Amino acid sequence: MVNRNPKIKAAIIGATGMVGQRFVQLLCNHPWFEISALASSERSAGKPYAQACQWHLEGDMPEAAAGMMVQSAAPPLDAEIVFSALPADVARQIEPDFAKAGYTVCSNSSAFRYEDDVPVIIPEINADHLSLLNFQKENRNWSGRIITSPNCTTTGAVFPMKPINDIFGIEKVFLVSMQAVSGAGYPGIPYLAIADNVIPLIKGEEKKLELEARLLLGKMKDNKREIAPMVISAQANRVPVIDGHTVCLSLQLHKKASPEEVKEALQNYQWPEDLKELPSSPAQPLILRNEPDRPQPRLDRMACQGMSVSIGRLRECPILDLRLVSVVHNTLRGAASGSILNAELLVSKGWIG
Amino acid sequence: MVNRNPKIKAAIIGATGMVGQRFVQLLCNHPWFEISALASSERSAGKPYAQACQWHLEGDMPEAAAGMMVQSAAPPLDAEIVFSALPADVARQIEPDFAKAGYTVCSNSSAFRYEDDVPVIIPEINADHLSLLNFQKENRNWSGRIITSPNCTTTGAVFPMKPINDIFGIEKVFLVSMQAVSGAGYPGIPYLAIADNVIPLIKGEEKKLELEARLLLGKMKDNKREIAPMVISAQANRVPVIDGHTVCLSLQLHKKASPEEVKEALQNYQWPEDLKELPSSPAQPLILRNEPDRPQPRLDRMACQGMSVSIGRLRECPILDLRLVSVVHNTLRGAASGSILNAELLVSKGWIG
Amino acid sequence: MVNRNPKIKAAIIGATGMVGQRFVQLLCNHPWFEISALASSERSAGKPYAQACQWHLEGDMPEAAAGMMVQSAAPPLDAEIVFSALPADVARQIEPDFAKAGYTVCSNSSAFRYEDDVPVIIPEINADHLSLLNFQKENRNWSGRIITSPNCTTTGAVFPMKPINDIFGIEKVFLVSMQAVSGAGYPGIPYLAIADNVIPLIKGEEKKLELEARLLLGKMKDNKREIAPMVISAQANRVPVIDGHTVCLSLQLHKKASPEEVKEALQNYQWPEDLKELPSSPAQPLILRNEPDRPQPRLDRMACQGMSVSIGRLRECPILDLRLVSVVHNTLRGAASGSILNAELLVSKGWIG
Amino acid sequence: MVNRNPKIKAAIIGATGMVGQRFVQLLCNHPWFEISALASSERSAGKPYAQACQWHLEGDMPEAAAGMMVQSAAPPLDAEIVFSALPADVARQIEPDFAKAGYTVCSNSSAFRYEDDVPVIIPEINADHLSLLNFQKENRNWSGRIITSPNCTTTGAVFPMKPINDIFGIEKVFLVSMQAVSGAGYPGIPYLAIADNVIPLIKGEEKKLELEARLLLGKMKDNKREIAPMVISAQANRVPVIDGHTVCLSLQLHKKASPEEVKEALQNYQWPEDLKELPSSPAQPLILRNEPDRPQPRLDRMACQGMSVSIGRLRECPILDLRLVSVVHNTLRGAASGSILNAELLVSKGWIG
Repeated sequence: MVNRNPKIKAAIIGATGMVGQRFVQLLCNHPWFEISALASSERSAGKPYAQACQWHLEGDMPEAAAGMMVQSAAPPLDAEIVFSALPADVARQIEPDFAKAGYTVCSNSSAFRYEDDVPVIIPEINADHLSLLNFQKENRNWSGRIITSPNCTTTGAVFPMKPINDIFGIEKVFLVSMQAVSGAGYPGIPYLAIADNVIPLIKGEEKKLELEARLLLGKMKDNKREIAPMVISAQANRVPVIDGHTVCLSLQLHKKASPEEVKEALQNYQWPEDLKELPSSPAQPLILRNEPDRPQPRLDRMACQGMSVSIGRLRECPILDLRLVSVVHNTLRGAASGSILNAELLVSKGWIG
Repeated sequence: MVNRNPKIKAAIIGATGMVGQRFVQLLCNHPWFEISALASSERSAGKPYAQACQWHLEGDMPEAAAGMMVQSAAPPLDAEIVFSALPADVARQIEPDFAKAGYTVCSNSSAFRYEDDVPVIIPEINADHLSLLNFQKENRNWSGRIITSPNCTTTGAVFPMKPINDIFGIEKVFLVSMQAVSGAGYPGIPYLAIADNVIPLIKGEEKKLELEARLLLGKMKDNKREIAPMVISAQANRVPVIDGHTVCLSLQLHKKASPEEVKEALQNYQWPEDLKELPSSPAQPLILRNEPDRPQPRLDRMACQGMSVSIGRLRECPILDLRLVSVVHNTLRGAASGSILNAELLVSKGWIG
Repeated sequence: MVNRNPKIKAAIIGATGMVGQRFVQLLCNHPWFEISALASSERSAGKPYAQACQWHLEGDMPEAAAGMMVQSAAPPLDAEIVFSALPADVARQIEPDFAKAGYTVCSNSSAFRYEDDVPVIIPEINADHLSLLNFQKENRNWSGRIITSPNCTTTGAVFPMKPINDIFGIEKVFLVSMQAVSGAGYPGIPYLAIADNVIPLIKGEEKKLELEARLLLGKMKDNKREIAPMVISAQANRVPVIDGHTVCLSLQLHKKASPEEVKEALQNYQWPEDLKELPSSPAQPLILRNEPDRPQPRLDRMACQGMSVSIGRLRECPILDLRLVSVVHNTLRGAASGSILNAELLVSKGWIG
Repeated sequence: MVNRNPKIKAAIIGATGMVGQRFVQLLCNHPWFEISALASSERSAGKPYAQACQWHLEGDMPEAAAGMMVQSAAPPLDAEIVFSALPADVARQIEPDFAKAGYTVCSNSSAFRYEDDVPVIIPEINADHLSLLNFQKENRNWSGRIITSPNCTTTGAVFPMKPINDIFGIEKVFLVSMQAVSGAGYPGIPYLAIADNVIPLIKGEEKKLELEARLLLGKMKDNKREIAPMVISAQANRVPVIDGHTVCLSLQLHKKASPEEVKEALQNYQWPEDLKELPSSPAQPLILRNEPDRPQPRLDRMACQGMSVSIGRLRECPILDLRLVSVVHNTLRGAASGSILNAELLVSKGWIG
């Protein structure tokens, strides 16, 4: 992992929220990127970050960020890359302005995630979808670009699905999630609402989960993306966990296989080698736990600095073929770190830097 | 609800554990039953209940029970009915001794739940299965009898399944549970194991869940029970909730129906009228919540003193036909109160009293 | 406990918040009062209560309340008594309007709690302070009146202090509280702020705690209240508990006494007999637990329907004289139920009804 | 921080418990020490560590340890230093055997903590107490030695007390703790006992807290330790927090000082410079937070890898002089890391290595 000198300038828009704070935390000592601008809503603009932002993460706000003046989330900003942690409705308005103005926007929001010409990327899963950016350029006539990360729960599900789909083919997916509270941002969910409780609804989440993995597993053809033909049924629940989404999956395979065969295939699967050079790339993208009661969010969310997805409990399903459980850190791999890895991919592929 | 005078004498075996304590709490002012004996392992026998038992429920240990001397869990006990809260391996040894000796054992344990001649009963679901007791009598030559209650999670699932199966037929069931910690008894699960966490394993639970609803929904034919022909896939999880199991269900129906049609059918469903006279029978066995984010264990577990199952989120499933969420109080309807209702049913049907 | 016929009409202002909802829940089947009006901020006025209010308590919103139209929190309202669950700044504006207009305001807010002519009342502690209402009438020339309840944590502390002060005299009090999240209302404290955490600050709370017990234990002289001369040092903490405030106390006594002597004095203490007729009056205002690890909020908060304060761990203090721990249900005895008991006291003393 | 080559061999006795696991985790990559033996009760002896120990910490059991064979906790072990995480009653038997046999025992247990000739050490507080080891040698005629770490809650309290006592003198201390669940080990406290609850008792803890800080702040005179003459009143509570003990303190000072004067004195206080060379020594032993609502266990427990104590809320006390709040990581600084730092001190002072 080589340092770049000079580093690439990066702005964070939506810098005061939970995911924005994660971007600040993660980019403060990044070997390739440096934070050159922090931007937020009008209300925060003009204040030092330390004052505009109530820091909610473990550890102190990085000193370098604390003194930066928060700017308005609009071009121009002194940056080449823009990490967006904006809510979807705001992102819908603002991200295109940056793309038009030539910036590369790495977005966490769902605002453009479902557009035909906007790649939703996990480097280990579908780096080839970056070619959608060519289609985007034609289509939109932007001098910059928008790429997006998937929903955090999709991330946890799609990591085991990728090798299984490659090798055996997936036709149907049952997915029930138990999602951490940090996924709802800050202040997010009141203690009185979720303590000693389960809330069996996350607004809009199930539709996302039933589509996004199909986008990520889609095939590129003539610079267009063909959505993977599987059917997904998703039920989303909120549980009293701080960080780490747990997903129970049941899969119908095109080519039948026993859990042992799938396990072996997963262990032998070759994740892309060329990602190893990316600073945020984990040693193991997917960790297969053999203990009968793993993965668990508190024990597994921080695997490889929160960049690995952990799975376990591979076993037969009486209705479909295979069941398993997956855990992902929702605000690291599933949000800020995921976007940063995407930006690193763009650098390594020559799109920026 | 008429009082009986004199009341029927009831012993509680396994009286010092969590479910045993619930039996004590619930039977202390019961209009039909009175606690005539408390029994437990050899270690506790000979001590007053107040000393043998560390009370873990809200409110104080009932004074009447506190002074009772704990006896050995073996016949004879001064009682007609025996409520068993024993662990399965102990129940396996001890419950038959009571049945042989002429007692009626209402058991919470799974020890005999899967025997062909032992009814597993929820009065609203399959009171007609009591006729298995005739088969049991022939088979075992016991002067008493054993009837059992199902697993707590099964109870939450089977309540909505019953009317849907009656009206539309159920062919396949996907079931993912999020189960409360009290289901594991006391001391049960360490705080350090489950706080801020999900444990995706409950030993032996999934096998139970994949069978028991089929027993409960089975049809009686010539004093034998035919297991319902549906297929169930169950995944069981432990979540940091004190009481109340949540179950996400997806159902394939024999006769296709929209969620609205199912909802209407549920609202019009006639639960057995003759159970209304039983003291523990809830005004509404099944409550259909219309709020988009209900049922929730903290808000719904105590519906009708913990005797109602609450469901909601009826909606289509992209793979099967219908999805919904169910909540049940696992130590009340799903355990002690459920057994007591069974005993009340036996009284009303003339098997005891 | 005799029913009144007709019942006294009661309005609830601030009816949609957490304490307001408790008032609705508690007054729905009250033998003396009936809810005749629900009022709230302009934003909610004109809507049915079911629509204006997101119900957060266990059990359903009472049907009688659900259909009532929410009114503006200003006179006139069709009521004799007004229960106020308004925040302090709003209460400051609105409660005097009701008092001027002839209503009796039973307030939970701190807005007028520290005025010389406004009684802060706990019936078991200082019912004689009602005579301050005469002083209030002279002073303010209101045809109605305002009486207030103390802060919830004060309530937990002052119940054991009352008999000890009567018998031994209290000179100094160290008080450290561990307060439940429901004390901050709804939405109140985010899960991400308090889960797996302690917050050692509750804004403004310590000043209240250092004064209010002195008001409650003050002596009446010539229709004026003399503040009790003790010194109180209070430290307030928020802990991840849903309901129930725990307070650690250390007391310096004027007349030295051993913990055993204090215990005996507490057991023999005569709480006012004439309160027994009040419908919300608990069988035991103060419960002395003898177990070494009690009281605990989850086990003791609901004692006598949440109206009893539970204490325990009476033992010597190496610096002052006596240490003990107290638990109170903060939204029942410490808020809504406390105000209702105050209103019942006013009825029994002839101030209303 | 220089590596040693070869490293000093260290055994861990009580290696399978919570503190034992922390020792394993922390010593696996330690620059001065290497784990040369893992020992535990007879039950575990003879099994590989991976099999004898259910790992409860975040991250995986270090591979180097997983394969080691667990030995009996008795000499001889191939080690120079022995880290003891034994429970007090077992430590009482076993630790002297090691000391007699020439080992240096760094103990976390309280077994010998209150002996006149056994130093209880925090390097930043009382490194000079190591000279008690001379007295110990005379007294016991051991060729090895025992040094101990204080109780975890004492550690959180004594860090702010040390500079305040040095500069202003402390006469009285009120201390109320809110202690994390991990302090009780594993399985420790059941979820059902502490969720949504406070337990106002930790057996034996208050006596420890009322003595230990006085030992740590004692003065050495002629190789004997004079206990600091202050009086401490301690109340200990368990709260639903995973890691991190919070302590509310109120102090009476010999030389009166305002909170601002104390704050300034703390900021200017010179902690021992010669500890900087110790690998586990934190950059800042004591962190003074200026936010009104800090320190908080979840936000501050990991400061400097869990080796810093964080304090805040310095303010006047109406009864004594000064109030403040302290947070310490109970299983790192307050247990395993604290012992390791003690061992590093012994090395740097020439007692071992």
